[in-house]
Amino acid sequence: MNQAEHVPGARAVKVSPKQLHGLSVISLTPFTDTGEVDVASFRRLLDFYLAAGVHGITLLGIMGEVSKLTEADRDTVIETAVSHVAGRVPVTVGCSAPGTHQTLAFVRRAQAAGADAIMVAPPNNTRNLDLVLDHYRAVSEVSELPLVVQDEPTTTGVVLPPAFFGRVVQQVPTARYVKVEEAPTLMKVSAIREAAQDKLGLFGGLGGMYFYEELARGAVGIMTGFAFPEVLVQVYERYQAGDAEGARACFYRYLPLIRFEAQLGVTGVAIRKEIFRMRGVIASAHVRQPAPRIDERTLAELTDLVGFLGL
Amino acid sequence: MNQAEHVPGARAVKVSPKQLHGLSVISLTPFTDTGEVDVASFRRLLDFYLAAGVHGITLLGIMGEVSKLTEADRDTVIETAVSHVAGRVPVTVGCSAPGTHQTLAFVRRAQAAGADAIMVAPPNNTRNLDLVLDHYRAVSEVSELPLVVQDEPTTTGVVLPPAFFGRVVQQVPTARYVKVEEAPTLMKVSAIREAAQDKLGLFGGLGGMYFYEELARGAVGIMTGFAFPEVLVQVYERYQAGDAEGARACFYRYLPLIRFEAQLGVTGVAIRKEIFRMRGVIASAHVRQPAPRIDERTLAELTDLVGFLGL
Amino acid sequence: MNQAEHVPGARAVKVSPKQLHGLSVISLTPFTDTGEVDVASFRRLLDFYLAAGVHGITLLGIMGEVSKLTEADRDTVIETAVSHVAGRVPVTVGCSAPGTHQTLAFVRRAQAAGADAIMVAPPNNTRNLDLVLDHYRAVSEVSELPLVVQDEPTTTGVVLPPAFFGRVVQQVPTARYVKVEEAPTLMKVSAIREAAQDKLGLFGGLGGMYFYEELARGAVGIMTGFAFPEVLVQVYERYQAGDAEGARACFYRYLPLIRFEAQLGVTGVAIRKEIFRMRGVIASAHVRQPAPRIDERTLAELTDLVGFLGL
Amino acid sequence: MNQAEHVPGARAVKVSPKQLHGLSVISLTPFTDTGEVDVASFRRLLDFYLAAGVHGITLLGIMGEVSKLTEADRDTVIETAVSHVAGRVPVTVGCSAPGTHQTLAFVRRAQAAGADAIMVAPPNNTRNLDLVLDHYRAVSEVSELPLVVQDEPTTTGVVLPPAFFGRVVQQVPTARYVKVEEAPTLMKVSAIREAAQDKLGLFGGLGGMYFYEELARGAVGIMTGFAFPEVLVQVYERYQAGDAEGARACFYRYLPLIRFEAQLGVTGVAIRKEIFRMRGVIASAHVRQPAPRIDERTLAELTDLVGFLGL
Repeated sequence: MNQAEHVPGARAVKVSPKQLHGLSVISLTPFTDTGEVDVASFRRLLDFYLAAGVHGITLLGIMGEVSKLTEADRDTVIETAVSHVAGRVPVTVGCSAPGTHQTLAFVRRAQAAGADAIMVAPPNNTRNLDLVLDHYRAVSEVSELPLVVQDEPTTTGVVLPPAFFGRVVQQVPTARYVKVEEAPTLMKVSAIREAAQDKLGLFGGLGGMYFYEELARGAVGIMTGFAFPEVLVQVYERYQAGDAEGARACFYRYLPLIRFEAQLGVTGVAIRKEIFRMRGVIASAHVRQPAPRIDERTLAELTDLVGFLGL
Repeated sequence: MNQAEHVPGARAVKVSPKQLHGLSVISLTPFTDTGEVDVASFRRLLDFYLAAGVHGITLLGIMGEVSKLTEADRDTVIETAVSHVAGRVPVTVGCSAPGTHQTLAFVRRAQAAGADAIMVAPPNNTRNLDLVLDHYRAVSEVSELPLVVQDEPTTTGVVLPPAFFGRVVQQVPTARYVKVEEAPTLMKVSAIREAAQDKLGLFGGLGGMYFYEELARGAVGIMTGFAFPEVLVQVYERYQAGDAEGARACFYRYLPLIRFEAQLGVTGVAIRKEIFRMRGVIASAHVRQPAPRIDERTLAELTDLVGFLGL
Repeated sequence: MNQAEHVPGARAVKVSPKQLHGLSVISLTPFTDTGEVDVASFRRLLDFYLAAGVHGITLLGIMGEVSKLTEADRDTVIETAVSHVAGRVPVTVGCSAPGTHQTLAFVRRAQAAGADAIMVAPPNNTRNLDLVLDHYRAVSEVSELPLVVQDEPTTTGVVLPPAFFGRVVQQVPTARYVKVEEAPTLMKVSAIREAAQDKLGLFGGLGGMYFYEELARGAVGIMTGFAFPEVLVQVYERYQAGDAEGARACFYRYLPLIRFEAQLGVTGVAIRKEIFRMRGVIASAHVRQPAPRIDERTLAELTDLVGFLGL
Repeated sequence: MNQAEHVPGARAVKVSPKQLHGLSVISLTPFTDTGEVDVASFRRLLDFYLAAGVHGITLLGIMGEVSKLTEADRDTVIETAVSHVAGRVPVTVGCSAPGTHQTLAFVRRAQAAGADAIMVAPPNNTRNLDLVLDHYRAVSEVSELPLVVQDEPTTTGVVLPPAFFGRVVQQVPTARYVKVEEAPTLMKVSAIREAAQDKLGLFGGLGGMYFYEELARGAVGIMTGFAFPEVLVQVYERYQAGDAEGARACFYRYLPLIRFEAQLGVTGVAIRKEIFRMRGVIASAHVRQPAPRIDERTLAELTDLVGFLGL
């Protein structure tokens, strides 16, 4: 895809580096074949994302295999990204943990390392939402960084009803954004906007499957690890430039691919790494174990599809 | 969409009425505004499905609100459909229940009413797969009707590994088909085919989201409640006629809509009923409670999308 | 155990037949060896329960294998029990179903058959509590029978926070009781009492494991299928007679057995049927499939324990 | 309870310090009021456990709030315990993690710090048991420490059927023990023993609720955080000394308390810390957030019960 045609104009709109919007791509964490964080590959991957025009980088999400990283790995990832990105786009750092104490430690480290924003999901299986709110309040007390509340019931087991976000607006002063991952995201986007009286910026999810409609419902962007970020960048920028029809055409054109990657869910890490390896961006497609396996045919289907779409 | 252009030729291939293939649409159960089964609307709906060229009708699935039907409702649905379809396409009847005794009762009724096939999911939360196999064996002992094993872990809580289907082939003589609903379906389709040594015909699912690739992996068809069955019929028939590129083009063209409906999951019942009500097929969009609600914007998005696609 | 010693005095307190209290035993559903409802055995079982001094009979609960009964089976169970019990103790009928329409049909049948109360759990996996409240409101509109709200998150997947019961008190005029099954039940009993401002009578659960403390926290009784109901009757009646220490002593004495049965959860149906078969109460220990199996050693352990306790 | 009466004789049987048996108490992790690991309190707690006659210490289990510890906290806990226990009883260290890479790092640290054994649960939600087996194989390749396989489906979401342990015996050379936490544990203990041909030592769980019967079924001990370890020590030692009736009498006597603590599940951390604080063993009952709250009445019930039992 020719990115040049749309980038210059759209990027001319200057946004504060700390204001999140557009595609904040959820970065993979490249490893060597022996499973160590591969800093050189990670820098090339960041370059690739930036060249694709992403509006932000999100570190330490599910696509970053965050649950399989040691604390030292986490530090390596954050420090590498912050220094390499060097303020060109905002860097958001995932700081979720089963306990408040550890989340606060992660938040402090992210801030010390120069992160622009933090993202925190509810502690797993905390069904008492008063406790979840306490968790977010504690976060807002240790850091002024903009907070992205991650609404991800599949992984956390915590369903956040829209009314919860009304309480967030009132009681968590640093809360600025919500990443909406609960399906169907479209109705959730609208319901949260209403409950939060438009005081929280909403990011879509689900691998981009409903990005066009999410934008139309007022989302400020998307966070996803989709391996062809240039597509979502183009959809977003056309939409922001007032060309909704162009955004829709672009979105529909690449929808077969967005859908194909979305089928894999967490399995998507493996295939996305394989894509970046084949493109020469990262040295190894190594995924930390245990991880679901992908059959060869899936890779062939993807290759065929990418070729069909001319990417 | 002009259905005439593709129907005649493709339907010329005569298939035994009891051999399941292609789109076996999962029928809605129309109700009156007061919540009773609306037989007249149901007949019109069946006519609509048949006019759209479906290759089979599947009754009493999730899209048929089966869990909310009384036994009398079930009988009404089966008898109405069997007599109205009158052998033009095979009718498959869902007979799932928490207990074997009740499933066997449902199977006997389906057979007595003239069903062509039965579909049975594992009893909910039965994690001991030996017991699940016993269940299927018992089914095969009371009826010679072809059995569709429904692989639906989300609703049942029962994950069936591919090797299970090897046991099914050996021990359940009436098992002929599997409806694959576990995501990602593509790898599951291939894994079951291998484990079952191609002795089970595979049907795709997930609302049609991966239908083209499911066919390419050897699926014999799909079972879904997608409200524009003519689209899937066309994809299937072009594919079967050897026109894989035509099938793909058709599939990609309508993918935005397939994806849109798929977001709703079980919520999809409400919107699908609304679509058929607007088209004048059924008299009421009534859904039995409790059911998730759909916002007005979703309906507007759908209407817009259908118009955009020229359907 | 000599029941005579405590029954006369305690039973002298006359309670309205429709006011639920004490042990409302959750009845088994006896089957023949071929799996049909065994009415003669069921009558003997009801006689046994009454002779043990139970204060009520609860039909069509989990211990009654309700999910494996046909509608005709349900009718047989209700009609047999209502006519056989003949008003000696109140009969509560479980009317839970995935849909409101079916629950209402069950409620109407229960009322027509002469039930004294109905018990309804939230429709499975209905996480939107507004919809759950609508369900209960609909129930209260079709029958004036006292309603027991069953708080059973393990089976239903629906967690009801204490505040929900404050809404029940205000909006569901027939709601009179809650059967508390969410662990830990003790704190839940107190929290619901407070939220409901003491307007709902609370029944304990968990097989009787915390019955003494539940009473001390203000529960009006318990609903459980524990196979030695005379023990819980005695605990309750001593407690009600003001002999808390005697109640505690009795409870602790038989706690090893209560605990032993509680380990089995839903598996408990099989062993409880075996106990009643050995005692000559029911003709067959048949359990409808699929059902978890019990090893022989479990039966031996139970026999040994019952002997040790002198029951 | 007078521990002197039973300890000397029973402890005369010398067991290799690395052979796990009896009560390997799952240690709490004491914190200061501000939530930092309190090493001085931890040492006093270890002294308390040893004085109670425990046969082993298990670190970094659920009762140790392991999911809320930083890596530095983990190191503090392990190093403090290993140096303080000084070989008097074997120290088992929990090394569970979502990924193999991190588990291996934890195992290496535990070994370097002088642990006697390691305990590893399946990575959360890894339903493909081939991947779970790979995980255990990898563990056995980096350390010769005896491995305890933790069978804990509630927390991990991974059900391990008995046959899995037959594969463990063949393919994981360092596997020596299983901690059985799947209810009902009694049948699981017997089923694993048979599948593993008695090559794995079995530890019971569930807070001690079935300890007597677990021993009778051949368990070698128990791992639990029950706050009155002297009770379980006595049950075990009487049983091992051939005094099954004495073991049973002791077990039944304290069963009301064992049961009371067991109701709280993970909530039990809070009340157990409160007990040790009141006894002057630890300085603060601080629990890391988010954590379920306990009402005051629960503490009063416990105090009453402990007094009633003369503990």
